[in-house]
Amino acid sequence: MSAGWLARLTQALSKHPSSNTYSLATVEDKIPRVRTVVHRTFLGQDTPAPLLVTTTDVRTPKSAQIADNWNTEICWWIEPTQEQWRITGNALLVPHSKHTGRIGELPPGYDWTEERQRTFNTVSGRIRASFCRPVPGTSLEPGTTWPEQLPPLGEWKNDVEREQVETAFENFALLVICPLEVDFVELKPIPNIRTTYAIHDGKWEERAVVP
Amino acid sequence: MSAGWLARLTQALSKHPSSNTYSLATVEDKIPRVRTVVHRTFLGQDTPAPLLVTTTDVRTPKSAQIADNWNTEICWWIEPTQEQWRITGNALLVPHSKHTGRIGELPPGYDWTEERQRTFNTVSGRIRASFCRPVPGTSLEPGTTWPEQLPPLGEWKNDVEREQVETAFENFALLVICPLEVDFVELKPIPNIRTTYAIHDGKWEERAVVP
Ligand SMILES: Cc1cc2nc3c(=O)[nH]c(=O)nc-3n(C[C@H](O)[C@H](O)[C@H](O)COP(=O)(O)O)c2cc1C
Ligand SMILES: Cc1cc2nc3c(=O)[nH]c(=O)nc-3n(C[C@H](O)[C@H](O)[C@H](O)COP(=O)(O)O)c2cc1C
Repeated sequence: MSAGWLARLTQALSKHPSSNTYSLATVEDKIPRVRTVVHRTFLGQDTPAPLLVTTTDVRTPKSAQIADNWNTEICWWIEPTQEQWRITGNALLVPHSKHTGRIGELPPGYDWTEERQRTFNTVSGRIRASFCRPVPGTSLEPGTTWPEQLPPLGEWKNDVEREQVETAFENFALLVICPLEVDFVELKPIPNIRTTYAIHDGKWEERAVVP
Repeated sequence: MSAGWLARLTQALSKHPSSNTYSLATVEDKIPRVRTVVHRTFLGQDTPAPLLVTTTDVRTPKSAQIADNWNTEICWWIEPTQEQWRITGNALLVPHSKHTGRIGELPPGYDWTEERQRTFNTVSGRIRASFCRPVPGTSLEPGTTWPEQLPPLGEWKNDVEREQVETAFENFALLVICPLEVDFVELKPIPNIRTTYAIHDGKWEERAVVP
């Protein structure tokens, strides 16, 4: 049995494919952090425990924040449909196997190594190249350069490019969100409609709440 | 002396006035919370310590979260200019005077009582009405209704409306953000440009960082 809310969310996204970014919030000590990320895919869409997948660089602060505290909330404002989706849950990183310390208990039933590799090969060459820039957030030394584009694994043209792709692949991580609560606000109807969903013993319970 | 980054942000907003919402993140215990809010105005634009003003209902969970932990971060994705502004700082509520417990140390130099009243009278009648709905987030009892529109203070047509406006005005609060750090990412240039700003002793320091 699938999560009832997901059909509604994917329906909005399929009509508005450019609404593919959301704000991802994490906590660093007692300070909230929030940034835009690109939604990549849902996994387990037909199960009661669907997952959201985005990607990040293991060297970014958010990766350390998630390793310390896996609580997360996303806010997805789908402007064309006037829907706000807030999804609260746990965030997990799927990094390169050399970063073993970072891996939490990943949801079973998926080949995460293959999923990470497949996603790396699917994102744009420009995004792939971004993973071999210097450490994100550090001072930019004048004159520093890094590739603008990188090919998928195995498609390098020479040894320099091979090394760059391998570095990028080492820094590349899936960021997987396991939803526990959903807060869905519809701004189009007047009065607005707000519905919350929470999973208990593998079942999603739905509740109409005051907006 | 004004904050250098603010001119750049207000320039983008004046060209794209519909980019007037951002994600506001707070912390509830160790859990991050994030939701969309509407930017209302900047205050102190010509000072080194500008403020961002949005509005909220004192009865919403975010109000209690801010009263407990004033750390906040916003993420403002201005899609038409491909700019992401993350602003980290402290959040303060300016509620009705009956909620004295909620007020932190508000920045001096402003008449907060008047600012709150002026803003209440400026937002749309529909937004004003939203402040006299039942407690946000509680179960919606079937058949519950609340006004669709409310006039500004003093412009009520009868006693019923007067009571509704007064209730709305009691629940209405300014939410003021005092910026301490700014992370500005420009996605249009390749390679992307990322600049951070932090205030030290009343002066904003700028740094070019790796995106
Ligand atoms: C439209 C847009 C999409 C972005 N997508 C991603 C993404 O999918 N993953 C990611 O790590 N950062 C993405 N970023 C950059 C982040 O917003 C952020 O600047 C960066 O990841 C560093 O975040 P952190 O310092 O909190 O770790 C995107 C930025 C924008 C403006
Ligand atoms: C486009 C949009 C704009 C919104 N603007 C505000 C706002 O300015 N202030 C506010 O309190 N809530 C606003 N909301 C509703 C919040 O996102 C949220 O649902 C509500 O404030 C409850 O948040 P909380 O439970 O975290 O306190 C807006 C929602 C949307 C979709």
